[in-house]
Amino acid sequence: MKIAISIGDINGIGPEIILKAHKKISKLCTPIYCVDKEILKKAAKLIRYKMPKDIKCQKIDKNIPTISPSTIDKDSGLYSYKSFKKSVALAKTKKVKAIITMPIHKKAWELANIKYKGHTDALRDYFKSEAIMILGSPRMFVALFSDHIPLRDVPNTINSESLSKFLINISSFVDKKCGVLGLNPHAGDFGVLGNEEKEIIKAIKIANTKLNKEVFQGPLVPDVAFNGKHLKYYVAMYHDQGLIPLKTLYFKESINITLNIPIIRTSVDHGCAFDIAYKNKAHIKSYINAVKMAVKMAHKE
Amino acid sequence: MKIAISIGDINGIGPEIILKAHKKISKLCTPIYCVDKEILKKAAKLIRYKMPKDIKCQKIDKNIPTISPSTIDKDSGLYSYKSFKKSVALAKTKKVKAIITMPIHKKAWELANIKYKGHTDALRDYFKSEAIMILGSPRMFVALFSDHIPLRDVPNTINSESLSKFLINISSFVDKKCGVLGLNPHAGDFGVLGNEEKEIIKAIKIANTKLNKEVFQGPLVPDVAFNGKHLKYYVAMYHDQGLIPLKTLYFKESINITLNIPIIRTSVDHGCAFDIAYKNKAHIKSYINAVKMAVKMAHKE
Repeated sequence: MKIAISIGDINGIGPEIILKAHKKISKLCTPIYCVDKEILKKAAKLIRYKMPKDIKCQKIDKNIPTISPSTIDKDSGLYSYKSFKKSVALAKTKKVKAIITMPIHKKAWELANIKYKGHTDALRDYFKSEAIMILGSPRMFVALFSDHIPLRDVPNTINSESLSKFLINISSFVDKKCGVLGLNPHAGDFGVLGNEEKEIIKAIKIANTKLNKEVFQGPLVPDVAFNGKHLKYYVAMYHDQGLIPLKTLYFKESINITLNIPIIRTSVDHGCAFDIAYKNKAHIKSYINAVKMAVKMAHKE
Repeated sequence: MKIAISIGDINGIGPEIILKAHKKISKLCTPIYCVDKEILKKAAKLIRYKMPKDIKCQKIDKNIPTISPSTIDKDSGLYSYKSFKKSVALAKTKKVKAIITMPIHKKAWELANIKYKGHTDALRDYFKSEAIMILGSPRMFVALFSDHIPLRDVPNTINSESLSKFLINISSFVDKKCGVLGLNPHAGDFGVLGNEEKEIIKAIKIANTKLNKEVFQGPLVPDVAFNGKHLKYYVAMYHDQGLIPLKTLYFKESINITLNIPIIRTSVDHGCAFDIAYKNKAHIKSYINAVKMAVKMAHKE
């Protein structure tokens, strides 16, 4: 099975992870790296790693940017975007079964005048679809009702219509009960600390009725929802509500999945980690899990 | 050392915890329970527990409410408030060295026309002071810059002036480096996902300069701030940002401390748990830790 892998920001840990995991990944699928081979060669030199011989690359750009470890850079931003677009094109034309994306730097994308805040945001636009971000490890998954937006904008996104649609959209992914978190402290404490929970209650009812099954439960009180024996599936109202507990519990192993688009896309669940770039310190577990999930999803289709 | 203990909502787990922990607590201090003895006797009967003989109570009210397990009730709301007020009065007049509060039900307080959203809110008003909520276990403490307010109102509370004051106020409690969390996903990602981090950066600078020590660091990216070997001290911008990781990691043992008021107050860090009230299931660890911390703080004075 062919899977396309975008390089991410070349000043971060993407190239190192790709090089180090290549042997393992090759046992799970046939990786097609969306990066000019020259860059991987330079990266291998920088971390003093032997470049694997059987690496298959796709050409991305005539102007190959220089690697400047840990630097926010317009050129590397643009390059990471082109690499990502290439991987999507390969999936759209069925040349690969799925794509895996390495982390990009959001500020570098902004400097390169790319109008998207991240991969998921771009996928939403490419496919004119409400792409959904699910993050998780095999033991716990969190679907983000809102993701890369300022916290200030979160409360206004919550209404029963779009939330119930969201719940129905993720229901095929969820094979067990799924907890839906409240927005406010203590899930609003019966309205004393906020009122958005009313919409959440409505949305859960609409979704469960439509699915004719009690899949969703809540709104759960956020701060106690993850202690002890936690559920396998959650819906979080905002980015950090879901990702703080996920990364606190399962940091190294967790991955990112985009649902509700016509291609399969998974990703590592970490940033480009400029603090450890080119220092031979990056973990590959999240990447391996991302590949495993993509393969699993492709088999299901 | 005498310590006053308020009963909390009598329909919740407060009375059970007090009864079961009495023997242990009595080795740490002389507990003065702010509750009419009759209530504890009834509670003991309900959970089939032998009422300890050496229990010292303070009379609270002529109208003693009936215990209705797991029920939100105006009368029990009012009673829990009177019990709390009594404990504060004992501390103010130096009859006790500290107070420990059992959990109240916020909606029951609202039904009883009590204008406060919780203990900390009331203490703020009693002492006309910016009471600060710190929660934690011996291994990790989180100070909440905003606490029992709707999430919608959080971003507008953040400005460098009040945040730097807050940081300076907690500095005496903090004996190691303290991480200050960002507000937005990825701590704003250089402004792409929100701008409040600018104020946080300013506040940290002001506080460290005034303290002439690099006590505070940040803004930390919230979702990765608690993985692996976490810090001992954090400042969270809002309730769930701090309490989700704390309760995910240290649920049973964590406590609540109020700083910046003229009395010592600690508390259990859980609600009145109507789901397990009078079922003989409540844990006493958080309460024991709250008493230990109160004793420690009283010795420091």
